Order: sequence, then C-alpha cells, then structure tokens
Amino acid sequence: MNKQNLFENIIRKKSFLSLGLDTDITKIPKLILYNFDDPIFEFNRQIIDKTSDLCVAYKPNLAFFESEGSKGWKSLEKTVEHIRNNYPDQFIIADAKRGDIGNTSNLYARAFFEKMDFDAVTVAPYMGEDSVKPFMTHLDKWVILLALTSNKGAADFQYLKDEKTGDQLFESVLKTSQNWGTSENMMYVVGATKAEKLKEIRQIVPDHFLLVPGVGAQGGSLQEVAKNGLNSKCGLLVNSSRNIIYASNDSDFAEKAALAAREMQQEMEVLLKEANLL
Amino acid sequence: MNKQNLFENIIRKKSFLSLGLDTDITKIPKLILYNFDDPIFEFNRQIIDKTSDLCVAYKPNLAFFESEGSKGWKSLEKTVEHIRNNYPDQFIIADAKRGDIGNTSNLYARAFFEKMDFDAVTVAPYMGEDSVKPFMTHLDKWVILLALTSNKGAADFQYLKDEKTGDQLFESVLKTSQNWGTSENMMYVVGATKAEKLKEIRQIVPDHFLLVPGVGAQGGSLQEVAKNGLNSKCGLLVNSSRNIIYASNDSDFAEKAALAAREMQQEMEVLLKEANLL
Repeated sequence: MNKQNLFENIIRKKSFLSLGLDTDITKIPKLILYNFDDPIFEFNRQIIDKTSDLCVAYKPNLAFFESEGSKGWKSLEKTVEHIRNNYPDQFIIADAKRGDIGNTSNLYARAFFEKMDFDAVTVAPYMGEDSVKPFMTHLDKWVILLALTSNKGAADFQYLKDEKTGDQLFESVLKTSQNWGTSENMMYVVGATKAEKLKEIRQIVPDHFLLVPGVGAQGGSLQEVAKNGLNSKCGLLVNSSRNIIYASNDSDFAEKAALAAREMQQEMEVLLKEANLL
Repeated sequence: MNKQNLFENIIRKKSFLSLGLDTDITKIPKLILYNFDDPIFEFNRQIIDKTSDLCVAYKPNLAFFESEGSKGWKSLEKTVEHIRNNYPDQFIIADAKRGDIGNTSNLYARAFFEKMDFDAVTVAPYMGEDSVKPFMTHLDKWVILLALTSNKGAADFQYLKDEKTGDQLFESVLKTSQNWGTSENMMYVVGATKAEKLKEIRQIVPDHFLLVPGVGAQGGSLQEVAKNGLNSKCGLLVNSSRNIIYASNDSDFAEKAALAAREMQQEMEVLLKEANLL
C-alpha cells in the first residue's frame, strides 16, 4: 500500500486507528479457548470482522504469537491471510522489532513481505543502515523505525546527546535514517507517552507517518498526540491494543472491542475535522 | 547452563566455537532438499551430529527459519530439541535480536526459554532496561546484548559520543546494562571486525562472556579476537556460520563442515594454551 492509498483510507473511514493484536492465550474468553482448534486465530478473526470499518491498520505483535511456538506462527499466518483476503484496504504491520546484518535482514524481509503479506515491519535502528534497508527494497512495503519508544527504558539511551551535533540519539536516528528512504517507505515509532516531543519530531520529519503506541493502557493522550502530530496527510497511525481487544473477556468480547474501537474512531473524527482534514 | 558449566565445557572440548545455523533453503544440497520432508531440520541434524564434539554452542539465526514461515519455525523447534536431547552440554543461542516493552519481552522470553529450551537470546538495547530484564528472570538463562556489531551500519549510531560522559553509545550500553544483570546472566555481542576495540571493552566488562560474530565470511581475525578478548574463564564464544555449514554443497557437506569446524577448534586449542587456560 502506498502513502496516498493510506491517506485515502483514513479520510474515508474517518479514522487513523491501528488496532494492535496482542493476543494473549491466557486472556482469551473460555468460550473461544475450549471450542476452537486455533483459538488465537478465532479470537483475532472475530475481533477483525467487527472492527474493520473502524480502523485503517492491524498490528499483530509477534511476541504473542511466538510464545505459542510454531502453532502460534501458524495462527499469525492465518490472521494476516484473513485480513488480506477480506479487508484488502487494511495496512498490516508486523510489530516485530527486527534488525540484523544485511543478509539476515533480507531474510526477515522475505518472511514478512513474501512468505506473509504484511505491509510494514517495525525495526530497531541500533545496527544502522544495512540492517534497515533490506526492508525497503520491496515495492509499496514499509519500514517503521523505532525512534522514541513509549516505555520507561526509552530514557536509558534514546536521550543521550551526541557531543558533536547536540542531537539526542532519537533525533540522530530520525535525521540519519532520512538518507535511507523516503516518507513513501519509512515511518517512525514515537510513543504517545512522549507527546510533548512530537512537535520537535514533526520539525525533523514533517512528511513521514508516525506510528504512535501507548495511548490508553500506557497512559498517552490522543488529543495531545493529534495536536502535535497531525500533518496535511494525517501522518499518524495511533495504535491501541489491550484497551480494545480485552474490553470484555466474555462472549461479547468482539462487540465490546468494536464499541471501544468506535469510541476511538469518533474521537479521531473530531480531531480530523478540527485539523481541516475532513 | 551457568557460567562455570560453560567454562568447563570449553576446557574439556578445547574449543570456544559457537556454530551458527544460518540454514538457507536455497543453499541446502539437493540430496537433502529433495529427499526429506523437512530439509532444513535434516541439514541441521547432520551438521550437528558431525560437529558436536568441536563446538560448545549452536546459534540458530531466527531469520533463516522465519523466512520459511510456520514450517520454518517447526524446523527450528525440532533443531533445538535435537540438540537438547542428544547433546545436553551444548549452549543454545537464539540469534533473534529481540527487544520490546516489558510485557512483550516477557512473551519473547516465554517463546525462547519455555516453549523452546534455548539457553540465551540476543537482544537489541535500544529500548533500555525494561525491554531486556524479562529475559534474565529465568534461572541459568542468558541475555546476549548487542554492544558493538560486526556490520558496516554499526558506525551509524554505536560510536556516537555522549556529551555528558564522553562515552560512545556502545560503551554506554556496556556500562548502563551492568546494573541490570551480572556476568552470570548477561553476555555482549562484539563483532570480530572490531577486534581492536576488544581491549577497551574488556576493561569495561572484564568478567562477561562476549559472543563474537564476524570471524571468517565477514573478515574478522580469530588471533586478534583471542589476544584482546580472552579472560581467566575464557570469556569468549566465537561464532562461525557460513564458512562451516556451507564448506561443501555436495553429499559430503556434513563431513566438510566438521573439517572446517575442526580447523577452528584446533586454532582455538593453541590460543587457549597460549593463554594458559589449558
């Protein structure tokens, strides 16, 4: 999917919601757990079928699938296939935090873009250019590079200030990585818990989409994110996971997830209007 | 496996070789590819059975398995199980370069330490303490944190110098992370192509094991690594992958791999003697 398609989907759906599939087998309603061969897929399928008109992206979190071994990886493949076959306008993000030497990153790209049909993969920047670029050689596929993350440990290294340029590490990542790709094949992860930094980040990357986790369970504010992060092509994918998919742990889990997603979509619609994008 | 066990294995085998299983389906001998249901596992199995007395660790590279989807993940599970059941003295490293917010890293730890029986996982430090610590809560399991990697892109961020401390980023990672664990549950990745830096690194982490990739195909020198990196408990796991497992692409591939591994083991035996460890 290219940037213009993504923007058009956002306008049509009046939503820049990314729905995170952090599907934890220990939190799946018993009704699903005991009645289906592949409860992780079934849980995802029901959530997806009820929410696809409210969000523009799904973001499976790889750890949750890998914690169930090869069976979990199979559930992941089926989940991606279900989205792709039934909701071709969805942007599908592998939240995988990969990144390795070039020949290895090449194979991760093969895993996510060829073996499965993801649109984007989250990548950690520590190993630099050759660990990131292999994800950008596929047409209309994206790298989403970690810049400033939403967790407490972000403070350990991401704010270290470079003696030469005065840039903090996350700023160096934003600046340096712009030589590797464009706003047509790169996005950045910026945590919602760092909303006050978004204004500064927008000056460095005015045109790039930002994937913003941390609204909701982690405490970030959607209004703050929108105020500081929206650009003329929206430029934001705000992710919510646990607040939506675990809105209920009973048989009404998918309906309740849809209600929680609709609440976010409606808030987003107001924000898009305020920004004159609708 | 604890540190003392690992050291004893090194002394007994006169080797600090880690054998990297970068098993690429496009490079597997046709004999294996066409005659087995799971050629990746079969290739690994034959390599492992011929080399287990020459190395102290196996390091499956996750990307190579993931590029074959859930089938590849199954091959990985079988490979780890084969090593664990037949060669319990091997240290098994998931070269996965993971790392995410705490609750997600917890699930990666579950994937590698509970669902499979790896001894260690390579982790990227960008997201800081809470992304790394969940891997250290399992008894006798290890984190191997990226410090200074062997690739060209290492230069993009790892040498940035902190304005306040004067430390380069990889030095900050080494120093800060020592508050998270000990030399009993942490190792560091230091590329062999950066052997001249090993002396400096040894001053910061005198007691930790270092996992050193990049000897061979990537151009690093084993002598240089040993000279600057050995400590009183050896403290080195030097990895070689492609030079060993693709020593031949014919029916003698496992024998040729064993010859290449023996060559490295013999070189290591000399180096261990020179360091008065044997």
